Formats: sequence, C-alpha cells, structure tokens
Amino acid sequence: MTAPTIDTVALESGVRSYSRNWPAVFSRAVGSTVWDENGTPYLDFFAGAGALNYGHNHPRLKEVVLDYFASDQLVHSLDMFTTARGDFLQTFSEMILKPRGLDHRVAFPGPGGANAVEAALKLARKVTGRESIVNFTNAFHGMTLGALSVTGNSLKRGGAGIPLVHATPMPYDDYFDGDVPDFMYFERMLGDSGSGLNHPAAVIVEAVQGEGGINAARAEWLRALADLCKRYDILLILDDIQMGCGRTGGFFSFEEAGIVPDIICLSKSISGYGMPMALTLVRPELDIWEPGEHNGTFRGFSPAFATAAEAIRTFWADDTLERSTQAKGAHVESRFNQLVAKYPEHELIGKGRGLARGLQFGTAELAGQVCAAAYERGLLMETSGPEDEVMKILPPLTLTDDELNRGLRIIDESVDAVLGRS
Amino acid sequence: MTAPTIDTVALESGVRSYSRNWPAVFSRAVGSTVWDENGTPYLDFFAGAGALNYGHNHPRLKEVVLDYFASDQLVHSLDMFTTARGDFLQTFSEMILKPRGLDHRVAFPGPGGANAVEAALKLARKVTGRESIVNFTNAFHGMTLGALSVTGNSLKRGGAGIPLVHATPMPYDDYFDGDVPDFMYFERMLGDSGSGLNHPAAVIVEAVQGEGGINAARAEWLRALADLCKRYDILLILDDIQMGCGRTGGFFSFEEAGIVPDIICLSKSISGYGMPMALTLVRPELDIWEPGEHNGTFRGFSPAFATAAEAIRTFWADDTLERSTQAKGAHVESRFNQLVAKYPEHELIGKGRGLARGLQFGTAELAGQVCAAAYERGLLMETSGPEDEVMKILPPLTLTDDELNRGLRIIDESVDAVLGRS
Amino acid sequence: MTAPTIDTVALESGVRSYSRNWPAVFSRAVGSTVWDENGTPYLDFFAGAGALNYGHNHPRLKEVVLDYFASDQLVHSLDMFTTARGDFLQTFSEMILKPRGLDHRVAFPGPGGANAVEAALKLARKVTGRESIVNFTNAFHGMTLGALSVTGNSLKRGGAGIPLVHATPMPYDDYFDGDVPDFMYFERMLGDSGSGLNHPAAVIVEAVQGEGGINAARAEWLRALADLCKRYDILLILDDIQMGCGRTGGFFSFEEAGIVPDIICLSKSISGYGMPMALTLVRPELDIWEPGEHNGTFRGFSPAFATAAEAIRTFWADDTLERSTQAKGAHVESRFNQLVAKYPEHELIGKGRGLARGLQFGTAELAGQVCAAAYERGLLMETSGPEDEVMKILPPLTLTDDELNRGLRIIDESVDAVLGRS
Amino acid sequence: MTAPTIDTVALESGVRSYSRNWPAVFSRAVGSTVWDENGTPYLDFFAGAGALNYGHNHPRLKEVVLDYFASDQLVHSLDMFTTARGDFLQTFSEMILKPRGLDHRVAFPGPGGANAVEAALKLARKVTGRESIVNFTNAFHGMTLGALSVTGNSLKRGGAGIPLVHATPMPYDDYFDGDVPDFMYFERMLGDSGSGLNHPAAVIVEAVQGEGGINAARAEWLRALADLCKRYDILLILDDIQMGCGRTGGFFSFEEAGIVPDIICLSKSISGYGMPMALTLVRPELDIWEPGEHNGTFRGFSPAFATAAEAIRTFWADDTLERSTQAKGAHVESRFNQLVAKYPEHELIGKGRGLARGLQFGTAELAGQVCAAAYERGLLMETSGPEDEVMKILPPLTLTDDELNRGLRIIDESVDAVLGRS
Repeated sequence: MTAPTIDTVALESGVRSYSRNWPAVFSRAVGSTVWDENGTPYLDFFAGAGALNYGHNHPRLKEVVLDYFASDQLVHSLDMFTTARGDFLQTFSEMILKPRGLDHRVAFPGPGGANAVEAALKLARKVTGRESIVNFTNAFHGMTLGALSVTGNSLKRGGAGIPLVHATPMPYDDYFDGDVPDFMYFERMLGDSGSGLNHPAAVIVEAVQGEGGINAARAEWLRALADLCKRYDILLILDDIQMGCGRTGGFFSFEEAGIVPDIICLSKSISGYGMPMALTLVRPELDIWEPGEHNGTFRGFSPAFATAAEAIRTFWADDTLERSTQAKGAHVESRFNQLVAKYPEHELIGKGRGLARGLQFGTAELAGQVCAAAYERGLLMETSGPEDEVMKILPPLTLTDDELNRGLRIIDESVDAVLGRS
Repeated sequence: MTAPTIDTVALESGVRSYSRNWPAVFSRAVGSTVWDENGTPYLDFFAGAGALNYGHNHPRLKEVVLDYFASDQLVHSLDMFTTARGDFLQTFSEMILKPRGLDHRVAFPGPGGANAVEAALKLARKVTGRESIVNFTNAFHGMTLGALSVTGNSLKRGGAGIPLVHATPMPYDDYFDGDVPDFMYFERMLGDSGSGLNHPAAVIVEAVQGEGGINAARAEWLRALADLCKRYDILLILDDIQMGCGRTGGFFSFEEAGIVPDIICLSKSISGYGMPMALTLVRPELDIWEPGEHNGTFRGFSPAFATAAEAIRTFWADDTLERSTQAKGAHVESRFNQLVAKYPEHELIGKGRGLARGLQFGTAELAGQVCAAAYERGLLMETSGPEDEVMKILPPLTLTDDELNRGLRIIDESVDAVLGRS
Repeated sequence: MTAPTIDTVALESGVRSYSRNWPAVFSRAVGSTVWDENGTPYLDFFAGAGALNYGHNHPRLKEVVLDYFASDQLVHSLDMFTTARGDFLQTFSEMILKPRGLDHRVAFPGPGGANAVEAALKLARKVTGRESIVNFTNAFHGMTLGALSVTGNSLKRGGAGIPLVHATPMPYDDYFDGDVPDFMYFERMLGDSGSGLNHPAAVIVEAVQGEGGINAARAEWLRALADLCKRYDILLILDDIQMGCGRTGGFFSFEEAGIVPDIICLSKSISGYGMPMALTLVRPELDIWEPGEHNGTFRGFSPAFATAAEAIRTFWADDTLERSTQAKGAHVESRFNQLVAKYPEHELIGKGRGLARGLQFGTAELAGQVCAAAYERGLLMETSGPEDEVMKILPPLTLTDDELNRGLRIIDESVDAVLGRS
Repeated sequence: MTAPTIDTVALESGVRSYSRNWPAVFSRAVGSTVWDENGTPYLDFFAGAGALNYGHNHPRLKEVVLDYFASDQLVHSLDMFTTARGDFLQTFSEMILKPRGLDHRVAFPGPGGANAVEAALKLARKVTGRESIVNFTNAFHGMTLGALSVTGNSLKRGGAGIPLVHATPMPYDDYFDGDVPDFMYFERMLGDSGSGLNHPAAVIVEAVQGEGGINAARAEWLRALADLCKRYDILLILDDIQMGCGRTGGFFSFEEAGIVPDIICLSKSISGYGMPMALTLVRPELDIWEPGEHNGTFRGFSPAFATAAEAIRTFWADDTLERSTQAKGAHVESRFNQLVAKYPEHELIGKGRGLARGLQFGTAELAGQVCAAAYERGLLMETSGPEDEVMKILPPLTLTDDELNRGLRIIDESVDAVLGRS
C-alpha cells in the first residue's frame, strides 16, 4: 500500500478527501475487487459511493463500451439525436418507465447528480412561480449552489460562502424516534397561514438518505408525504441519485412505497459503468421548459447512454437482481443485528434497506476506526451521517455471496478489533 | 437526413435544443466529420461547443481510451489516487503549468464546467469573506445556480425561478465601441465608498466570450483588469472552459495577455476526447478548503484523465498546434473580412481570436438562416450572442487546410444564398 | 355614524383597513372614550392597537405636552442632546431598568416599532457574524423588509414582492396543544450538524403574540427559550412593542418569566401619549455599533420623550398599575370563561395575559360579526390571529371598573347576538 | 456649551452621532435659532436634516398644534378616519396635487421616510412581479432593510449584517464629470438581453442627493430618466423625502423637470413642524394593495396631519415661498462661488439647487474642520458625501435675509480660519 510520490500530492488541492483514508494508488478493478499498483486487492463495499451498482467494469458492459469507442461513435453530442441516445430513450421507456406505470419525460440535465437536482429545482420553481423548497434534515443533494442549499451538512453548507436561502428543513422520518406523528410539524405549518413558512414550490426527498447516515424512510411515511404534497399543491422531487438503479431492490427506491413523484433525479449508477450521466424525469404536464432554457456541455456523453441501455437490458429484464438485492440486504441486516446484540453497551444501530446498509456507532471516532481497521484488512467502506458516526456499506449489487460473506467477516473482525472483544 | 421516430422525440423533454436545428440522427464521427445514420457526412465547425478541440475520436487518444477500458483500469474513482490521476497531474504540471510559470494547485470539482465555476465562486467567497461577484455583460459560465447567477443571457437566467443575486455585471471590453475608457465605470464605483457597489470577492471573466457572441477582449484590457483586481484586493477568476486548451492559440486564452489569474476554470476540451472532466486551478495560498468541503461523484472519471494526459503529450510538447491555430485563425479572419466587404450594406462584423470566430449579422434571423443554409450544405455551425445574431465557428483545431477551406466555401455560399448575391 | 365625503376616500390608497370596519370619522378622545364628528361616543377596547395603554390624552401627560410645545422646546432633534432626552434617559434608567436589574443601553432606532426591530436584527447579525434568524409561528414584528421577514402572516409577507429569506419559523408555545415537549424540534435541529438549519444569529420572540391571536407564552417556555439561546450561543431578542409598557401587568411582558433578553424592542405605548417613539435596548457588551451606523430622521422626536418620562413617573413609581392590570385581566378572563361555558358547541377559547385578552371563535366570520355587533353598540375592538378568528381586546390599562364592565356587557350582548342566544 | 452629565451619555448606545460634534444640550428653538441649556443661541443651517423647512416652532403651526392637543383631538389613529386626516387629504389634494396636474393616491406608510421607501419598493415589486431595483451611486433612502439595500453608503450598508441584494447601482448625473452620455451604461444594459442586468421593477432616485453630497441632477437628466423608464416599462420612484416640501424651490423637487413619477416618497418636512409623518403617493392605476397589506402603528399620527394641512395653507397658497427660496439659493450660490474663487488651490466646488447647498472640500478633514469652526461661532451645519467631504447647508426656508447673511459670514470666517487666509 504505497502512497503516490509526494510531488503528485503537492500538485493537488487540499480539498481531496478519500485519498486521506485510503492512501493506496489504485490501478485496476473488476467486479467487486480493486487492486492497487502493487497488486494488493481490496474488496469494494463502497462502489463509487453508489455509482457502481453493477460492479467495476462489468464484462457485458465492457464489451459495449469497447465496441462503442472502437466503432467511432459519437462521444460528445450535447442534445443532438444520436443512435445511442435514441436506443437509451427507448430502452429506458420500455423496460423501466412503462412497466412501473410512469409516463415521465426524460431531460438530460448535465453529467452529474447535482445537475439533475439543479434542473429539478429550477423547473419546480418555474412551474409553480414559487421560490421556497422544503428539504429534510440530513439530506444530501449536491455541491452546486442550488443543490447545496437543500443539503443539510453544515461543513459543506459553510463552503458556499454566502447565506444559503430559499430552503426550510423539515424532520425526516423517525427524526424524533417515533415520538411525534409523521409530518405533524410540516403539516401544521402548511395549514396555518400565519406560520411564516413560505408556501413551497416543492419538497425534495431521498427515500433512503445515504450521506445522511443510511436513514431509510418507511413506505407509509413516503406515501403520507406524497399525499401531503398533493393536498397542498406542492411538487414532489424524489432524489434517487444514490438509492436508485436497484440499490434498495427495485429500480427506483420509491417503488416499494407505490408513490409517483412529480420529478425524479437519477445519476450515479444510471450509466452502469461509472460514467458521468444524469437524468431528470418530469411528469409530462410539468415539461414547460423553453428549448435551451437549461443546458450543459456534457449532457450528451453518449458512451454512457450505450452502457446505460445495455445495463437495463442486462439487469432489468426480470426481477432476478431485485430479489437478489433484497436477499443480500436481509442477510447483511441479520449480520449487523448480531453485532448490535454482541455490543449492547455500545448501542449500535443497524440501518438501511436493500444493499444500502449502515451500522451506527456512538461516535465518529469509533466508526472511523472500524473503517480504518477494515481497510487494513482489505475492505473499502466509508462513514456517513452528520458526525460521520455511521459505518456505511454500498457493495456492488452484483457481488457474489462469497464476496458478501468475506466482507461481512472483515467487518466483524474490524468491529471486534475496535470495540475490544473477539 | 431523417429525424428519429416520433416516439423517441416524445420521450424527451422539450428543453432539447440542438436537435431542433439539426434533425439528423448522428452515428459516427472521426476528426472533423460526423456522419448521420444514413451515412451522410457533415463537416463539423461546432466541435461540441468547444469540447472537441482535437476533433472526434482522435486516433492516438482512441488507442489510449480503448487500452484504458480494455485493461480494466478504474473508471470511477472520486478523489482516490489512481495511476491515471497521478499521470495526469504530473503531465499537466510539467507540460502545461510549469512552462507557463504557473504554480496553481489542481482541484477536481466535478465533471463539467459549471462545477469548475461553482467551486471557484465558493472558494473566492470563503477566502475573502465577501459575497459579491462582478461578472461581465454577455458572460456565460453555466446553468447551475451559482454559475447562472454570473451568466448574462436573460432566457437562461429566467429559468432559475428565483431572483439571481450577489452578482453585478460590468461592461465587457469594447461594450461601448471604444467610446469610454476601459473600466471607467467599474473603477469609479470601486473607488467611491458611497457607490452602493458591494466590495466584490472576485471578478469572473472569459478572455473570449463564446456564448456571448465571440467577443475577444484585448490583451491590454485583460491586463488592466488583472491590475485593477490587484489594486482593489479582488480575486480574478478566469473561466477558460470554452476558450482554453488551445482554442485561441496558446493553451490558455489569457497567455497572450501575460496575466496570472488567481483561479482558472477548465473543462470542455481538457479530456481531449469529449469526455466529462473539469479542473479548478487555484493559487497555492488560496487553497484553504477543508478536506471534502467541496466534492462530487464524478470528479474522478479516470478514463478522461488518461486521454487528457495523452492529449497534452500529443499536442502541447511544442508550439506546432499553437502556430497552426493562429495561422488558421488568421485565414478565417481574412475570409470573413471579405464577406464583410462584400456586403457593406449589411454591416457584418468579423469577430474572434485564434479559431474562435464569429460573423455578426444585423439580426438573429439572418444568422440563423445562414446556419440553416450551411446545414443543408453539410456544415454544422451554430449561432451565439445575446440575440443569436452571431454565426459562430469553433472548428476542431486539428482540421486540415482542405477541411477549413471547404467549410469556408460553404459559409460563403450560405451567406450568399441568404443575403441574395453570388 | 357618518362616513367622510366620498372625495376624501377617493384620495387615499386602498391599503387603508380600519376605516373599512369603523366608517365613523373620529374627532375627539379622552381616556377610554372616542367621539365621532356627530358626538357619538365609542368605548375604546382597541387603544391604538396597544399604543394607548394610558388612554387617550391623559390629563397629566396633556399638561406636559402642552407645556412642551408652548415653551418652544425642540420638537425634532435627531440624536442631539436635549433637555427632554436627558430627562427621559435618566427616568427610564432609574425607574424602569435599574429596579429590574437591567443594564441595557438605550438606542433610539427611529419613530416606530419596525425601526426597533430592524435595528435589533442588524445588531444581532453584526455581533455574531451570522445571518439567520429564528422567529416563531404567528409572529408579528413589522412591515419593513427586515421586520417582515420574521413576521408570519402570509398576506403581509406576500406584500414584500421578493422572497423573504434568512428566517426560519419555529413552533410557538402550545403550537401543538401540549402534545410535544417544548423546543423539541428547535433543539434537535440545533444539535444536529446535518439538520440544514443555519446556526441562527438570534431568536426573536414576543412574550404574548398580539397580532398572532393573543397567544401568551408560559413563563417556563420563555425561560427554556432563554436557556436554549444561551447554550447555543444565540442572541435573544424580545419584541415588547405591543406587550410592553404594562400591557400584561409588569412594565415588561417578560418580567414574570425572570429572563434577561439580550435585546429588547419597545415602542407603541412608550411615549404614553400615542406619539411615535421606539427604543432598542441592548446589553452593554453588544453595543458595538459605529457612530451613525444606524440612524433615522425621527429618532429624536422630543415631545414624545417628555411624555414618556412623565408617564413613567406617573404610572411606574409603584406597583399600583401593575396590580390593577392583573386584577382587571383576571376579571376579563373569568367573564370570557363564562362565554366559553355558555357556548360549548362553539368551542370558544379564552386567551391572553394581563389586559391583552382574546376570545377565539371557530371562524373569522363569527369573530368579525361579534366585533361589528360591538361597534354598532359603541365598542371598538378588532380581530387578530392567522385567520382573524380571535376577538381581541387591548383596553387602556387606565380604564375604570365601570368602563371595563360596560365593555364586557357589550361583548356579552354582541356574542349573544351573533351566536343566537340571550 | 456644556455636555450632559456623564451618566446620561453612558445610558445611551454608542450609535449616536450628532451629539459627538455638537456636545451642547439644546433646550429651546424658534425659527432659525436654537438655544442650549445655558441660553447660548445657535443659528441653525441644519434644520433637522431637512425636516424643519419652515423653521422651529413656527408660530402659526404652534397655534394649530397647541389647539389640537388642547381640544383632545385624536393623537393616534392608525388609518381610521379622523377630522384631521380628512382635512389634510383635501388640502393636500387641492393645493398641492391638483395644481401640479398630479392625480396620485395618498398612502400613509408609517411615521418616517424609510417607511415611505419600503412601501414604494413593495408596491413596485407587487405591480411588476419583478424584484430588482435600480438605484444610483451615492443614493440615500433609509436604514431599514429594504431602504438600505438601495442606499450607497458603505458604512451604513455594512451595518445590515447580511448581503444587500436585489439592487444595482447606476451612475448618477455627472458621475463621470460629463465625459459620458447620460444613461449610456444603463440603457445599453437594458437594451441588451445578455447584459445580465435583471429587468428592474423600478428605478428609485432623488432629484438632489442630500446625504450623497448635495448632488443636483439636471432637469434634462431627470427627464431622460423618466423617458427611459417609460420606454423600458420600469416604474419611477422619486424619493422627495429630503428635497421635497419646497427645499429646492417648488413643492416637489422634480417640478422643474416637468416629470411625473409613478411613486413619490415624502416625509421630513411634510408635517411642517418636525413631527413624524410620511406619505407614499402612487398613480391610481398602481394602487393595487389589498387592505392592510402594508400597515404600521404610527401611520396615523394626527397632530402631524393638522400641522401639515396648515403648513400647506400657510406656505403654498401662492409662489411667495418658492420665489424666496430660489432667490436665497441664488444668493448662497454666489457667495459659495466667491469662496471657490478665493481658494483656487483647494479646488472647492459649489453644489446644489434652491436652499440645498453644499461646498465640497478636497478632504473630509477640511469639511469637518469648517463645520467645527462654524459651531464654535454659533452656526450648526453638517457634512455629507461619500467621504463627508461636503459642507452641507439646509437652512430653514423661512430664515430672514439677515439670518442668511449672518450664517454666510460665519461660513466665510470658518473657511478662512481653516484654509488659513482672511
């Protein structure tokens, strides 16, 4: 595990973060494994922070990408029609949207998740003529100014350098440990014309908060939220950037709840191959943009469209992946519960849904030590949560049972090493 | 020139724009030529809005990208150390920064130009503790909320749905046709404690405004701006997203002026292959970010680093490309001047620097008709400017003299067809 | 009860409101009685919306004001030293501040309550370097932009014409009918670095919300709020504009709770004679303003200082007024409770503290009809609350028992007339 | 000239300013003279910063005010109809508005000038549905958040504690010493859809800037501004708070230019007696406020209405005062010109119109020394301008020729004393 020469580090801004915890120089990756320059393998339970749901360099997608580049198809196409774009649109529509009863139109807002969120917020404001957005405690939606204003993390908010306005945070599901009826505060404020809450254009929500600490909202909470939005004429934006593309089981994380968001943000794993791509899906009646009113240079990175279409064909033709993810998720849950039971004095909390799983420790220090111990043992995973107190795993959905068990064993060992029992 | 099936169009948001003027479905591209699905070739004087300075699918870079993907190197790596990242940093430092006397640190702000701008604005505000930014008339910096607030175009600004604040536009070079001393207004306001102009954190500027209508600032204007910033303790952000990477001749568009911006934004052609990548370069003493204070999922799209490094080695080892670009640019200039002379009653104006060139018509209608006539003749180019009154060409820097002349002939014919003379 | 000639009405903006419900032209007023131009008397349970706590044209203060004007003392003095200003400062300090253990410095922020609030918000932001303010549901603090941003009423907020930002409303005391622990939401958000709540510069609160519907916070709620502010390093601004000067019994409405606000806003009855005057009281260590950093033309309206000083000497040399207000308030409370008991099916709610009293009806219509019925019977009172569903009385503290009972009888009759029983 | 006891000073906030330059305790004032507690007289060329255009305690108005209070008329009446209010409205309409061809409706926005400005800005935004306001360099419009955002002075702006947004400053008349065509910058920006200037709801302007340094706009500049506003569908707000009520000759400062502003702000001298009062005059078609959408406790301070009506009858029945003000103004101008000629090396500049006059020095220090020297000689006047470099006089319009000459002699002596010649 060698770090790069000091020269290279000195060339880069101090804003870099992952390389501080994982000083290895990585060079190759297949499936759930990453190798550093010395050939040391790491089992990857991080998966590009959710951008690699189908693992690294999946062989079928690799064929597609090699073929795409080899045949000199368009790499960069903005919003011109291309063969790859048309194929993606048809595949996405036929295999993802229609079977789920969705008739949303697809906008290509730019290459990353923040673009999808920015476009969603802009459109919601344009449609409603209102400015305010309601977000939730511990939400994460991105680092550009609009996306950051609806993000909770105070370090990241502080980086804006200007007051972040137009957003009011409401308590996420279970924020008060069940002591308070859902949406009591939010609905009371909406129904009171003297509350001082600006009538929101939209609510933006994650069905499972990843960066916020692997907080999974209950299906009934999401349904109640969708209902609330309808009653108060507020658009519902579902940010499925990290939790979509099968992370929680179904393609969309909100399927289980049976709701239909007005606007859906997708990115991260949508290309299936870790390539920059994002979508903003909008209900047809909301699609009132002028041509070019929102645009962006890399909104048409077409190799990503090619792998995205193929990934859909490969993984979403039937429910095999969905059922596998649920089964693996249940397995992780039971293993985490064993750790919770093993260390009652530490009041660990198992969290999550599907293969978005977390184990909450009492302090950031403990969670960080466990991740460091796992790294020493060849497992990549990171922390999340407001204080980084949650050990978070987002393994490739395609990992084998053996890989899953190997990773869980390393987690057990790492927790034992840190909490002092074996 | 067939349009896609109506079904595919109906699946997409009405925000799409290029496909309205160019209804062909493109499928393949090499160098300066793009082919549609029927095999019809188009000469590309658009080049991905400046993202394809080295043409489509350059053979040397194609080898690199194929090799990269074939060898299962990391596609998605956030800010982890990777072999490709280290190679890019060293190459960029040794071959681009050092020879130009720059010691900036490299931040990877996300996959697109707007990310580079958002990061620049955030850092400038953090460093200075001030909020206001001075931008310029007809600036274009991107579509996310922070970048949009410093962009001039009113259609795009209107899309924000909230009042865009914290930015004050100042007149760009030659905004008053030389009738007013440079920066008279700006400097008077800065020097007057009662002017009502908030002391800016930073000025953000393009050395040549592309979207704004191919407005090229004079070197002395840029120098005076840099000097003004220094005297008033304002950071200078140079947005070289569209005009960098050799578009105007030198690697950076500001080299000719001999200035050293505090922060430099790069994107578009930096990968050399049309792949999403962006950089924010910051003077070392400004690099005060906390680790992770700005981040983003696709800030480490490593195949782009590989082609970026190879593009630098291929095109920037000596001044061949720079001299070629200047020569070709001079050639375009003289040909445009002939059109200006040919149609005195239309008061055409030739604009630009290097291979960023424009021909301004009296109306958007004329400019649009010329572009449409060129498209019919197999040439891709678009309009820009506040009213889309400027015919704009950004051909690949690597196009052959023959291609250049062929394109210029089509332009001649198209202008003649529209303005009614031959 | 004649309305003015149509001509006069037509000259005035449609923004006028009180004259719509009380179309009489008033010409004379003494104590608790107002007469219209025809000599018809009205018993005044409105008292200038709390600006006439000592009644109209109190004879002792009338002597002072006549003497002041007759002797050609300064009417308009900005912040120059004047005899009247010095006398007021000493009297206020000796008889109001010191006996209550307060060492606040007195700023004269302008002639009205909104000025006092604007100055408070500006200073809190300057002291803390933060921008956000926490206000409460159904707060009312004024109509200038800063004051309006912390006001709850949506009609009034809508009048701003720009998004009102930098304020986050929190639930006022008893907002959830006691179902939720006090400050559960607020404190949870403050303690969670990922909540998305900007760390506030200050909390602004009324001890009794007048415009919000005569909502009286409990003493323990105010103490818990003061404690919360201290623990989280947030300044506490107490807006005592309507509820100060004895309205709830003690001179300050927060005395009963035993708290010491960082900043106190006073206006309305501070002059004792209905004259424009306002104060912003600040703890000495917060008084970091530059000379002239906040100013205003009418901040030194000196006749108001003269009556203000005399009002203090007249009413606050002992606790006679305070005890009388409490006794009268208790009497009103018991009479309102009788109405509540008489009409159980209407679920009336008696509200308030001291002589700030309200009777909440099920609808704005009923409350308005009761006020109209009372006006027909010669009693002035208005509604408040988010939907104007609360009949609100703020009688002069100096009214006689006979006047109080006469007014309460009219209220009884009016309620009976509207609710249909006698 | 004794200062007050130290105790009184210590009770007050350090934000006080005038009492720092004029440490006397003032106790009585008649016409143009103020006496301190020791009986020392001061000739008042300050006149309440323009709030005392008819001098202190004018005998005719004094009768009215004494009579008003003695007869127990209403002091505080919000927007109820009162005899005094009706009389004022009729008098103002008949004697001020109609003769000048104005049909504006009168709103009573609160007791001070800032209220008039806040109401104007709110209404302009509501009417147009836009947020941005264009103000001018060195404008002063007040200290509440909305008014402050359109004010130029950086010390006062800094006091806001939040970024002041939604306003863009444009150069006032002669800002570039005549080198640039009027409104070149503003109109170019308005006409350019890519300029980045948000389309403004309104322009707010003073015909003569008092706090900004006694800058008098030319009539043709004001006409061109009014024309520009009309062409670009922007409302014109004329802030006549300090320069109205005859200060420049005519009742309104804009009469000379022959323009009709959409909204006019009046305050300061409108009561005629130094009492808090303000008006927002709006063209009838703009009067779209909901009842109560803007309000305020002291918007109906009726004694001020009584003196305001009487002041109009006393001073505006014919053009005597207007001609006198012009004559006196011309006299001051010629005397200031003599000083300019006497000290050519100091490059003094005489400024102003009517009896709003300034003498600009090279530095704030010199201007301040001259004012201090004048104070020692019994003359009150203050400085203004961005650096306080302008000696500013706003004498009562009613001062006698003898008083005027006496004051001018003191000014001569003071200038001589400071500049070192006699």
